[in-house]
Amino acid sequence: MKFQPPKGTNDFLSKEMIRRQYVIETTKNVFEAYGFEPLETPVFEDLKALEAKCGKDVREQIYKFEDKAGRRLGLKFDLTVPLARIVANNPQLPKPLKTYQISKVWRYEEVTRARKREFLQADIDIIGSSNMVADVECVACAVDCLKALGFKDFEIRINDRKVLDGILELIKVEKEKNLDIFRVIDKLERIGKNGVKEELQRIDLEENKIKSLMEIITVKGNYKKILNRCKKLLNGIKIGEEGLTELEKIFEGGKLFRISNMVLDFSLARGLDYYTGPIFEIIVKTKKEIGSVAGGGRYNNLIELLGGRPTPATGISLGMERIIEITKTDKLFDLPKTKIKVFVANVDEKVKSETIKIAQKLRKEGIFCQTGLMNRNLTKQLEFADGLGVPYTLIVGEKELKEKKFKLKDMKKKTEKKIKLDKIIKLLK
Amino acid sequence: MKFQPPKGTNDFLSKEMIRRQYVIETTKNVFEAYGFEPLETPVFEDLKALEAKCGKDVREQIYKFEDKAGRRLGLKFDLTVPLARIVANNPQLPKPLKTYQISKVWRYEEVTRARKREFLQADIDIIGSSNMVADVECVACAVDCLKALGFKDFEIRINDRKVLDGILELIKVEKEKNLDIFRVIDKLERIGKNGVKEELQRIDLEENKIKSLMEIITVKGNYKKILNRCKKLLNGIKIGEEGLTELEKIFEGGKLFRISNMVLDFSLARGLDYYTGPIFEIIVKTKKEIGSVAGGGRYNNLIELLGGRPTPATGISLGMERIIEITKTDKLFDLPKTKIKVFVANVDEKVKSETIKIAQKLRKEGIFCQTGLMNRNLTKQLEFADGLGVPYTLIVGEKELKEKKFKLKDMKKKTEKKIKLDKIIKLLK
Repeated sequence: MKFQPPKGTNDFLSKEMIRRQYVIETTKNVFEAYGFEPLETPVFEDLKALEAKCGKDVREQIYKFEDKAGRRLGLKFDLTVPLARIVANNPQLPKPLKTYQISKVWRYEEVTRARKREFLQADIDIIGSSNMVADVECVACAVDCLKALGFKDFEIRINDRKVLDGILELIKVEKEKNLDIFRVIDKLERIGKNGVKEELQRIDLEENKIKSLMEIITVKGNYKKILNRCKKLLNGIKIGEEGLTELEKIFEGGKLFRISNMVLDFSLARGLDYYTGPIFEIIVKTKKEIGSVAGGGRYNNLIELLGGRPTPATGISLGMERIIEITKTDKLFDLPKTKIKVFVANVDEKVKSETIKIAQKLRKEGIFCQTGLMNRNLTKQLEFADGLGVPYTLIVGEKELKEKKFKLKDMKKKTEKKIKLDKIIKLLK
Repeated sequence: MKFQPPKGTNDFLSKEMIRRQYVIETTKNVFEAYGFEPLETPVFEDLKALEAKCGKDVREQIYKFEDKAGRRLGLKFDLTVPLARIVANNPQLPKPLKTYQISKVWRYEEVTRARKREFLQADIDIIGSSNMVADVECVACAVDCLKALGFKDFEIRINDRKVLDGILELIKVEKEKNLDIFRVIDKLERIGKNGVKEELQRIDLEENKIKSLMEIITVKGNYKKILNRCKKLLNGIKIGEEGLTELEKIFEGGKLFRISNMVLDFSLARGLDYYTGPIFEIIVKTKKEIGSVAGGGRYNNLIELLGGRPTPATGISLGMERIIEITKTDKLFDLPKTKIKVFVANVDEKVKSETIKIAQKLRKEGIFCQTGLMNRNLTKQLEFADGLGVPYTLIVGEKELKEKKFKLKDMKKKTEKKIKLDKIIKLLK
């Protein structure tokens, strides 16, 4: 009997964890600089809450189960629904409520290099403000996270669900089809124009409507020109006009926050059903094949849908697995192999207990250290420490104990000096 | 439709999260000082791996489900089994392997104040060393975590599964019953002597054996005296003698690590089946009613059982929910209500964009801040900031912008001064 981690999940050993912790810490720090405050919810939720507004595709991907009392539960597939549930249940929470969550989520998807079934997300959300500045603040914060991690060549794609609604109204699509169409459009990058056309045919959209839709959504270029052209096109279609106004505010706000790489992209739709206004996605230009590294948008109806008061809300989610992967493949920073600073080695078994006493002293001073636990000779101990990547070893023998001076070995430089313990402590601190 | 977090789980809002993050950070820091390195595993595992050696009671408590491909999975009920699985699959990992994990686990149990169904554990483990120093190091590290968090009045209970095996051999219990009996004994604190007797009767243990067993396991006092008496009692019973030797080494090691509050307790058994040697539990003396705050022991067979080579292993798990709860009820430390340092308020809407520019400058300097997002007047903004517990507000108006000096208001002291932005930055840093 041997067991692997279940398909689509991963174990993370220390080297990988040091990277993950660094990325998480960096992200958390930027989130907090923007005034977002931490929030955590259970890994599973009432299945009905999860299914309320996720959309057909995601509904199929939820890990579902019953607890022993017969409650129907599911592992959360995102961090927005649990947040909306909390806000719905706690109308007394002061607004705007600015929260961040860094947590794993689960979706049963086809596993690829960029897509796992268990994956880490880092979300920020602003609840209670209908001001577009809130949306832009979320985008700005996500951008600063990426910058803090060393990302350079990325692009923020912006669209608005209301504009998409307006376009569909313009070309006379029955409203019930809108969400299905959004989910198809959202796959453009992955399945290409022909793929999208085929899927639109499959949901019975007429050929001429498909043609018109594809023409409009694939327009790209200077946002002001496109907005102006679109204003004429959607003239008189209220929802579309609203969406365009929102987009204008988003781009104005972008200037205020000095976000330089925002692009208007009518083909951006996002896969989840709960969006109601501006939507955004961040793409690393050199890594388009792995999809977006962040995405989000405004979801003004979700909290009401989960039993709360009508409450405007917006947020963005960083895809941490992809971000971590890129920091690795693109060597965005170097990290030590281990956090252990010094290995306290014993010359022979007789002085073993002295190494423990010394190690305890070092630990009290906040110096991360390890002692031998395997009755190995000195050479083997040094080899072990070197293998772990520990930068220093401190060698304890009877002679050293008498002299009250110990050999401190720099494992990289291969140098050593004999000094007193208090000096060693100063040096290692 | 309104939804609560599922029974036995909790949402954690910002104030609670600040405490949790502080406790986790403190614990992590002590773990790392002892040379433990981070590890993370998926939330769910192959159900067979989980069920391999958990024991009857826990097996009943696993949240089980199938994924869409029909894999039988379960949410992990502890952090030891996933670690043992990794070690079994990766015999090349250098030994001793010292890992720490801080993660939620799940058990469907009866919900009480001290017992949730989703709860956080912080584990350290030493794999590959059969030296009892490894066990003591784990205990010492757990003790230092508690001390770092301000705990004072606690006691470390020590026993050894081999001694319990020896006692059962002495009173001639059939070996197959041992694990069942351990699980019953383990409940002594919770259900009392009579409760234990009743449960032992239920598993068909004869009256005279129950009597003998209860007499031996409820002995308490000076560990040297008890050990000596027990040596005579278990004379010739190999497994029991081995256990007593292990216990002697544990208590010697305790002195080396200067652990002052170790107590020998033959009634300690631990609820999980995988223990093979020394076992330990930490109890806060004034909080006995909530059960142990940490527990663990040696599990030399588990890795082999999961398909690996025979590998000695030991570890201890901190019950973080209980620890967090006690830091709160016993007021072990004070924490700020929010991490936001300053609220950048605008006198009127005209200067709104200037507040954003200033906030962005502060954020770049690592000062956590927030701006208004609700078109509120100044008084309302100050009230909001005060409600959040933000210590400073910075007030931006047209006059201030012209003068290039801004009012910085100390919200607690109710004082304010007008100073330049670079001075404000220095002050808030």
